[in-house]
Amino acid sequence: MSVRPIFVVAGVGNGTGTGAATARLFASVGYNIALIGRTAEHLNKLADEIRGIGVEAEAFPLGSGSYTSSSIQAAFAAIKSRWPACPLRVALFNVGCWVRAPFLDITPEQLQESVDIHIVAAFAFAREVILAFKELDLDEEGGKGKRGTLLFTGATSSTRGNTLSSAFSASMFGTRALSQSLAKEFGKENIHVAHAIIDGGIITDRTKTYAPKDVLANPDRVVHPENVAESYLYLANQGRSAWTWELDLRPAHEKW
Amino acid sequence: MSVRPIFVVAGVGNGTGTGAATARLFASVGYNIALIGRTAEHLNKLADEIRGIGVEAEAFPLGSGSYTSSSIQAAFAAIKSRWPACPLRVALFNVGCWVRAPFLDITPEQLQESVDIHIVAAFAFAREVILAFKELDLDEEGGKGKRGTLLFTGATSSTRGNTLSSAFSASMFGTRALSQSLAKEFGKENIHVAHAIIDGGIITDRTKTYAPKDVLANPDRVVHPENVAESYLYLANQGRSAWTWELDLRPAHEKW
Amino acid sequence: MSVRPIFVVAGVGNGTGTGAATARLFASVGYNIALIGRTAEHLNKLADEIRGIGVEAEAFPLGSGSYTSSSIQAAFAAIKSRWPACPLRVALFNVGCWVRAPFLDITPEQLQESVDIHIVAAFAFAREVILAFKELDLDEEGGKGKRGTLLFTGATSSTRGNTLSSAFSASMFGTRALSQSLAKEFGKENIHVAHAIIDGGIITDRTKTYAPKDVLANPDRVVHPENVAESYLYLANQGRSAWTWELDLRPAHEKW
Amino acid sequence: MSVRPIFVVAGVGNGTGTGAATARLFASVGYNIALIGRTAEHLNKLADEIRGIGVEAEAFPLGSGSYTSSSIQAAFAAIKSRWPACPLRVALFNVGCWVRAPFLDITPEQLQESVDIHIVAAFAFAREVILAFKELDLDEEGGKGKRGTLLFTGATSSTRGNTLSSAFSASMFGTRALSQSLAKEFGKENIHVAHAIIDGGIITDRTKTYAPKDVLANPDRVVHPENVAESYLYLANQGRSAWTWELDLRPAHEKW
Repeated sequence: MSVRPIFVVAGVGNGTGTGAATARLFASVGYNIALIGRTAEHLNKLADEIRGIGVEAEAFPLGSGSYTSSSIQAAFAAIKSRWPACPLRVALFNVGCWVRAPFLDITPEQLQESVDIHIVAAFAFAREVILAFKELDLDEEGGKGKRGTLLFTGATSSTRGNTLSSAFSASMFGTRALSQSLAKEFGKENIHVAHAIIDGGIITDRTKTYAPKDVLANPDRVVHPENVAESYLYLANQGRSAWTWELDLRPAHEKW
Repeated sequence: MSVRPIFVVAGVGNGTGTGAATARLFASVGYNIALIGRTAEHLNKLADEIRGIGVEAEAFPLGSGSYTSSSIQAAFAAIKSRWPACPLRVALFNVGCWVRAPFLDITPEQLQESVDIHIVAAFAFAREVILAFKELDLDEEGGKGKRGTLLFTGATSSTRGNTLSSAFSASMFGTRALSQSLAKEFGKENIHVAHAIIDGGIITDRTKTYAPKDVLANPDRVVHPENVAESYLYLANQGRSAWTWELDLRPAHEKW
Repeated sequence: MSVRPIFVVAGVGNGTGTGAATARLFASVGYNIALIGRTAEHLNKLADEIRGIGVEAEAFPLGSGSYTSSSIQAAFAAIKSRWPACPLRVALFNVGCWVRAPFLDITPEQLQESVDIHIVAAFAFAREVILAFKELDLDEEGGKGKRGTLLFTGATSSTRGNTLSSAFSASMFGTRALSQSLAKEFGKENIHVAHAIIDGGIITDRTKTYAPKDVLANPDRVVHPENVAESYLYLANQGRSAWTWELDLRPAHEKW
Repeated sequence: MSVRPIFVVAGVGNGTGTGAATARLFASVGYNIALIGRTAEHLNKLADEIRGIGVEAEAFPLGSGSYTSSSIQAAFAAIKSRWPACPLRVALFNVGCWVRAPFLDITPEQLQESVDIHIVAAFAFAREVILAFKELDLDEEGGKGKRGTLLFTGATSSTRGNTLSSAFSASMFGTRALSQSLAKEFGKENIHVAHAIIDGGIITDRTKTYAPKDVLANPDRVVHPENVAESYLYLANQGRSAWTWELDLRPAHEKW
């Protein structure tokens, strides 16, 4: 059994977006990969792919098929059992629940789901990660001096409410507040928490179905998951004297 | 029956804070007062007091004793029945659910309650208010040119996460995002939405029990509910060419 | 000679904008009016108009015809001589130097002028105002509890750099930083400093010449100087327990 | 003569801070190094050191010994002459002029110097860099897809005015506005502009003389120039689909 560090990500969709790209990148630089999500099929497919390049990877589908405190807790317990000797060093909360609708058209169920994911599940995920980090010694490799890095994927709506984003923004603002609170509370314990604001359309299998062809074909107008993944790796590797809480990421030609 | 406009406030605590002070001020300038809250006793006491100065006021305790979509909807229906000929012109969401604790000490119940109040209930309240405003003609009195004004009480934690405020900030960031989204979406329909950031300790019966005596005695260090109420009246009266979405309010000597 | 408080404004253009509207409003509520500016003709015309309604008003054209530390200092000395027994209570820095151009087209002279006005002159103006305020007792009228109020007119560009606003934003960000620093430093001495972000087109004689007719005719799309003036009066009257540092002001239908 | 890309930095102090550390790091990854500054002695010492590791480096002391439009323009002309075949790819404006004093103690000269450096010189530097970048083809190495990267060093005072920082903040807010305006205007031309907010004390020869010993000895409480340099290299290498305009950098234990 390896003593490689563990990278855990919640939210890998169908394996074509940011979560999956980040899993692949961390696999390539020496991490064991733990995949948390709702759909076992997607998780297993990605785990298989990563194992194919000789890296340990495992799917941890949520018991109830949804992000609840107990299903998240169970997933982390299973990760610990899978690699009892390996330290959990990097965690990414990348779960998305995108609602875009006029305020009066948003149903209570849509709002609730958005809040349940971006705030309640984010808290539960962060809790397991922080508890795991607190048990670790400092990772001194490369002068990092940290127990671990907890990353959150944000969006334009994390800092700006807009006409069609009341539900999405209300929850994404919440994730951001959580990340800032944690960064301040646990920095003192050498736990690094960061929040990336993705300000542009990410290319995935899903967005490819509806984004305009000329946009998709233009490398200056879409966000490639691989480039976001690189930013997460950079954040995870930042030395203890200069940690970033927040950065924005957008395509070269994005209007903002 | 009068044709005075209606002011509705959700969250008046025990009648010594911002919600109650704002109700009193709007009563004094010609509004009928509708009080929404969890505790019938507190609401009735304040309604009695306001009726004592010759103004129509009514308590609308929440059916279930809690802020749910249906209890809020029922309260607005009851308000409409009470004053069928009067336009609802100003609404204040002032409900507070203050959690201050280290992240790992926050229970799922505390987080859920905070989110339920500051986001879910805020959405339900806003929905009823917006629906009521949309039925109205413009209020042209004093050049206002608006259908109505929807106000939200925010706090320091609405814009800044901190070591003890992860749950509170996550929800208050959410209220703020909602208010900004609504301001942008409904400004076009002459509905004014504003958010006040109270950056300081408000004097109430409750805060009087634990705030240091020298602070309480210093008029430059505490927030008087009456002064906040004045800002809400100012916002409600702003002319259509210069509406404020957000302002901060803090005592003269506040360190920030 | 009256013992009315003094309102001083720097920047009244040709008498049709925010500075002039604010002067008129403060004249109507009991202030002596001191007008500082570059063009004696404009200042005198407005002073005449205000005197016409029975209020003391005086023009203080800048010695050099420009905003320098010494010309500003001289203007304040002259104001003090004019009304030696009257307290300076409210001051508004409303000087504008609007540059809108692609970065590479901005000349060193344009940048310098913008910085000289929005930063250097703003500092000099603030210095004279703060020094005057520090000599005063608290104004307890209406529970205000303040020595005086220093107001700054900001713009959209005060918080957001954009493609054509590098020079204007760089200086307006500077004014905003000054106002925040002063608010924090002098709040402790009961000096209130506030900054208003005007996020929309203000109607003046000048803007009337180039703004589209349908916009000008639409009361929901333009900023009326009178409405901005009302916000300044509100700020000046805020009670000591709830002072605003910053508020935004925009037309009901503004897209933002 | 090599065809390595050029890295130019303005502001290297005495060679112990961020500018120098960044020069060393870019030298180590294949850039020719151009050093702009006021003090020839410091610049030459650092250039000698870098040449000592086999990298081309050159000092470009400012003609007048100060940052003026013409002295900056002359420096860039000299850089071009020195390496006519090499593309200028990365530029860092790192000039500091730190004023920390109560508002009333700040002299007009101090304010002017701060503005001259952080705004006027920053504009002049940016102008030369943008003009140079516009002449280049895209750098496609590593999928970067950019003409060049222009970096600005910011500080806590870039986003927050405070009691002792009126002059410093007013100018640093200005630099930040410039950087944001440029990022928006020139992103479309594949020119990447970024701004780093250093929120903590940087260790240099100078800060070592006055910072408390226990702080200096604590790797979690001080900013090491090398770690900031790494962030600049990361920014320069970001792929075109995910560019950062702004990130913050602070020590693990910083209180914020």
